[in-house]
Amino acid sequence: MAPIIGVVGGGQLARMMVPPAITLGIDIRVFADSRGESADIAVTSTGDYRSIDELLAFAKDVDVITFDHEHVPQEVLHALVDAGVAVHPGPDALLYAQDKLLMRERLGALGLPVPDWARVADAAELAVFIADHGGRAILKTPTGGYDGKGVRIIENADDAADWFAAGESLLVEELVEFRRELAQLVARRPSGEIALWPLVESIQRDGVCAEVIAPAPGSAGRLADVAADIATTIAETLGVTGVLAVELFETTDDRLLINELAMRPHNTGHWTIDGATTSQFEQHLRAVLDLPLGATGCRDEWSVMVNILGGPATGTLADRYPAALADQPTVKIHGYGKSPRPGRKVGHVTAGGDELDDVVFRARAAAAFFED
Amino acid sequence: MAPIIGVVGGGQLARMMVPPAITLGIDIRVFADSRGESADIAVTSTGDYRSIDELLAFAKDVDVITFDHEHVPQEVLHALVDAGVAVHPGPDALLYAQDKLLMRERLGALGLPVPDWARVADAAELAVFIADHGGRAILKTPTGGYDGKGVRIIENADDAADWFAAGESLLVEELVEFRRELAQLVARRPSGEIALWPLVESIQRDGVCAEVIAPAPGSAGRLADVAADIATTIAETLGVTGVLAVELFETTDDRLLINELAMRPHNTGHWTIDGATTSQFEQHLRAVLDLPLGATGCRDEWSVMVNILGGPATGTLADRYPAALADQPTVKIHGYGKSPRPGRKVGHVTAGGDELDDVVFRARAAAAFFED
Repeated sequence: MAPIIGVVGGGQLARMMVPPAITLGIDIRVFADSRGESADIAVTSTGDYRSIDELLAFAKDVDVITFDHEHVPQEVLHALVDAGVAVHPGPDALLYAQDKLLMRERLGALGLPVPDWARVADAAELAVFIADHGGRAILKTPTGGYDGKGVRIIENADDAADWFAAGESLLVEELVEFRRELAQLVARRPSGEIALWPLVESIQRDGVCAEVIAPAPGSAGRLADVAADIATTIAETLGVTGVLAVELFETTDDRLLINELAMRPHNTGHWTIDGATTSQFEQHLRAVLDLPLGATGCRDEWSVMVNILGGPATGTLADRYPAALADQPTVKIHGYGKSPRPGRKVGHVTAGGDELDDVVFRARAAAAFFED
Repeated sequence: MAPIIGVVGGGQLARMMVPPAITLGIDIRVFADSRGESADIAVTSTGDYRSIDELLAFAKDVDVITFDHEHVPQEVLHALVDAGVAVHPGPDALLYAQDKLLMRERLGALGLPVPDWARVADAAELAVFIADHGGRAILKTPTGGYDGKGVRIIENADDAADWFAAGESLLVEELVEFRRELAQLVARRPSGEIALWPLVESIQRDGVCAEVIAPAPGSAGRLADVAADIATTIAETLGVTGVLAVELFETTDDRLLINELAMRPHNTGHWTIDGATTSQFEQHLRAVLDLPLGATGCRDEWSVMVNILGGPATGTLADRYPAALADQPTVKIHGYGKSPRPGRKVGHVTAGGDELDDVVFRARAAAAFFED
């Protein structure tokens, strides 16, 4: 029998695990909230991922459980492990992707470079941090945030009253002066093998990844080495299995600071589907099954990924295919099977080639067909 | 709504259409003989592809019907067309992939280069052809053959008694003295656009494709031009839509002769999944939906595909993954979800790179892990 991977969550990350599973001859089953989600073709169960009973039932017929998102509660994860289910990444690693305060504490304790930060329980503590950091800071809810949600720039501590009202401590960080944002993706399998893709540049718009350039221009050498060391240390120390994304700031004074962690395939790695010998999705499957990892080299000198955010104001992505495919026959277009909606990630495009300017042009030209 | 493609047949060709459908955001549904076939993940109906009623019911909910195999009877194909269903390739083209006698007649009438051949109704006619061609010939059943089935080398006309007993005329051909076998793949969409991949060399063992080298060594120039002309003429004249594979002999006196046609993605095009900008499977989907075709250039200097024929004598393909993936981290391994059985195509591997010797070595080394 081929091994069976069970994925909790039916979004586009689960969807993009399906092609490499089919290719490798691995069975993949998805547990989704409901039918009709992005990964629908592989959905075998629907239900509530916060239910121990429902996830135990789903896990009974699979060889390993992995995730489309990081929201499965710790008590559910531990119940799976206690029942003998292979869970990758495991609860003790996922904890640091779920709780940004714990993540900051742990990475700081490891001596890894993080922005100045503090745990603040009320507006008074927050006001002190803001005053100490030039009158502005970044405030984050420790849990539940993604794609710019749960994050705000704050100048007046009173503006956080709504978040403090929830009773939880918050994470406050210095507003880092950065030149650009980078991301280092790494995969690690339970038996310890590690593989790193090249460091990439991630261009954000409104807190959401808009474009990725691989490799990050000018990063060969020191920058790539430091990023690789940081990601390797995190993956090994926290015992991460599967793909780990480390989002980094390159500061104006030439340091790398850790921004966020994600313990799953990540938007900054979508270029690997078309641009790397082994994609982050194939590698994630190999890693969580504890299979040997694949080569991570670039297939092109440059790869550029552009997200399709929102999509067309009227109609579907597919309506734009005749024009987009005719105009850009070398660009790979990816649709997530989701209805267009402002700000929603509904697809992406990837171009590759020898000249960065040309690659950027082709990727943006293709993506533009899907925006109004 | 995304377009919906319906594929008749649940084998590995249907399976390999699923990843590009997921990637492009196209819905794909498969009509299979039964559950558990290679393309199972996309199966939505099972039944008898010779049943007009069953295929009409399947076709009701899809935008276009295409095929995993060429065995759907003409009357069923015409019933679909008469009911207003988009069928690609259509019955008038498929006819020539279904009936080798008609194919030889038509290609000969077009002045395309084919081996000497004859329609023979009995042993006496066959004996004349054998005598005229040096005492040996190739005898073929006009319909139903594939992968060496329905084909035999014959020296004595009496040895064909069993086939003549079926009452059908047979196709007899000269035994071509060839240097090697080549294949030219082309895709054509209903509105006329055509795209050709590079000419490839196909190495056969026991009548079955064993290895493919892309591009065919030494083929740039005249050979590639002639093959491209032949394939383009066939696709346009017969009105083929989707992928067409033209299997060719390169004779010892430097001619190209047409061996067989296949009107679907083809084993000699599997290398395109990893080795071309647009794979034959993505291109087939684009073509049958009448979407603009993608670029067909090579991603590597050389690509080599090796079939996994039969598979391990004990256990499954997946049992060999730990050793194979560890040994060949750059080779892409494809499993078809089929149980090993002598001679059965259960998977393939593809390697790519700059040095042909090295690429061949890596592909064969990876494939060897799956043979006993």
